[in-house]
Amino acid sequence: MPKLFRKVREIRNFLRSFRCSNDNSNSIGFVPTMGYLHKGHRELIRRSKLQNDLTVVSIYVNPLQFGPGEDYETYPRDLERDLTVCEEEGVDVVFAPTDDEMYPEKPTIKIEIPGLTDVLEGAYRPGHFSGVATVVLKLFNIIQPDRAYFGEKDFQQLKVVQRLVKDLSIPIEIVPVPTVREEDGLAASSRNTYLKEEERQAATVIYRSLLLAQKLFSSGTRNAKDIKEAVLRALLSEKLVSKVDYVEIVDEEFRIRDDQVMEGDRLLVALRVGKVRLIDNWRFGDEAV
Amino acid sequence: MPKLFRKVREIRNFLRSFRCSNDNSNSIGFVPTMGYLHKGHRELIRRSKLQNDLTVVSIYVNPLQFGPGEDYETYPRDLERDLTVCEEEGVDVVFAPTDDEMYPEKPTIKIEIPGLTDVLEGAYRPGHFSGVATVVLKLFNIIQPDRAYFGEKDFQQLKVVQRLVKDLSIPIEIVPVPTVREEDGLAASSRNTYLKEEERQAATVIYRSLLLAQKLFSSGTRNAKDIKEAVLRALLSEKLVSKVDYVEIVDEEFRIRDDQVMEGDRLLVALRVGKVRLIDNWRFGDEAV
Repeated sequence: MPKLFRKVREIRNFLRSFRCSNDNSNSIGFVPTMGYLHKGHRELIRRSKLQNDLTVVSIYVNPLQFGPGEDYETYPRDLERDLTVCEEEGVDVVFAPTDDEMYPEKPTIKIEIPGLTDVLEGAYRPGHFSGVATVVLKLFNIIQPDRAYFGEKDFQQLKVVQRLVKDLSIPIEIVPVPTVREEDGLAASSRNTYLKEEERQAATVIYRSLLLAQKLFSSGTRNAKDIKEAVLRALLSEKLVSKVDYVEIVDEEFRIRDDQVMEGDRLLVALRVGKVRLIDNWRFGDEAV
Repeated sequence: MPKLFRKVREIRNFLRSFRCSNDNSNSIGFVPTMGYLHKGHRELIRRSKLQNDLTVVSIYVNPLQFGPGEDYETYPRDLERDLTVCEEEGVDVVFAPTDDEMYPEKPTIKIEIPGLTDVLEGAYRPGHFSGVATVVLKLFNIIQPDRAYFGEKDFQQLKVVQRLVKDLSIPIEIVPVPTVREEDGLAASSRNTYLKEEERQAATVIYRSLLLAQKLFSSGTRNAKDIKEAVLRALLSEKLVSKVDYVEIVDEEFRIRDDQVMEGDRLLVALRVGKVRLIDNWRFGDEAV
């Protein structure tokens, strides 16, 4: 079983002595999660185990990154099950703090990155990325890993974390890990458990729409508007898609691409299948899995 | 002579091996400064030397915390002189990075603490505390000290740093150090060098005004408005005081005190003597030095 810590002070003490032992050469890999671990998380863990002497997984549903009316209360939680997954994957340390331990008082800090935290997910979920940034910085300060692993499924979050690391000189290597998909292409996500059977089937339209965009790109279409419209139409062709928040293309600096799409640009989508909000993205130039 | 580092990578390597040597018990004290060291800085250094195995002083005039029209260009700089002061005080390590080293690209992060970074100094210097927070977090991530020393002269800045440490679970003890004053009571500040002889004399009105507030408090006056008005009048009685930005009283949570002043509250003032902007503060209940 992985070693389970509930308290900041205790995991700090444990990691401090680990870090300095072995002639100060021990490396720590960190996989921050909100639990309810799935195959995407397993992939993050495997990458960490390949590159580090010790792998720490945090499991914490961070209230700060949920807005009013979002799914904080219903977000799936099952620590027993998560510990089993961690054991199967050979995780060394699990950090599963309580709310009191993480936020003895409510943080007042607001962290914004204009042009990044206020667009797309940030525009639809005001305060979300400030909450993400706060908890990620806290966890980084508690774990002080050498490397931290983030899935590309939450692509904008990855960009925010990369920017924090750069702007604040954080001595951690951020390792992006490609999105892990189910056999029918749906991106692995804890929120997939919200989907009823019919909705789960309908959600495959997302991956099909991303592939359509890639196919258009491969066959020479470069106009961003044309590609976005095709994707939007494809998504809306599915009756259970009740709302599309955005279909957008950004360049590698996360600037909205409004003219010619280039290889390396990212298509980002957010939509509701029934009442379940899902996001996904695609890098132009990638091949279907 | 203290060991001088100009590069982030080099000081990191040096401190990493220091930290882990001596059975992982070595402690690092950190005094962040903008250079042009004075007796206030000397006091910070002395405190650090008492409590730590190694003392690091950073010298960096941080462009991010200066607004347009402020004194970034004219801020006094003299590295040779600063190194001599550091040697006299027995500083072990000086970190004096170039702008390129600190900001290879311009940071985009904005850090706000509503109710703290947007009032008083924050209201008069928009963006100032976001710039302070950014550079302090960077320096903390580069030095990773056990303790960091901040003067109470910049009281609001101290509060911002304490809040960052709390909100972000930064494993650093912030040590506040009481304001060091010249013989006539003027708070030590690098900006005092801007004062012409006449202005330097006129600037003593600040300390006299703070003492007046304490005297009123000691003799039973508790009404915040009465005390603030008396201080304002005292400041404006000096002809070379060309403008008073604010005279304000805050409680220990930095909430504006608009009724009864309590022991432990802080009187904060900002004003111009000639063209030189100075700040100072006083804790009600303290005794004159």
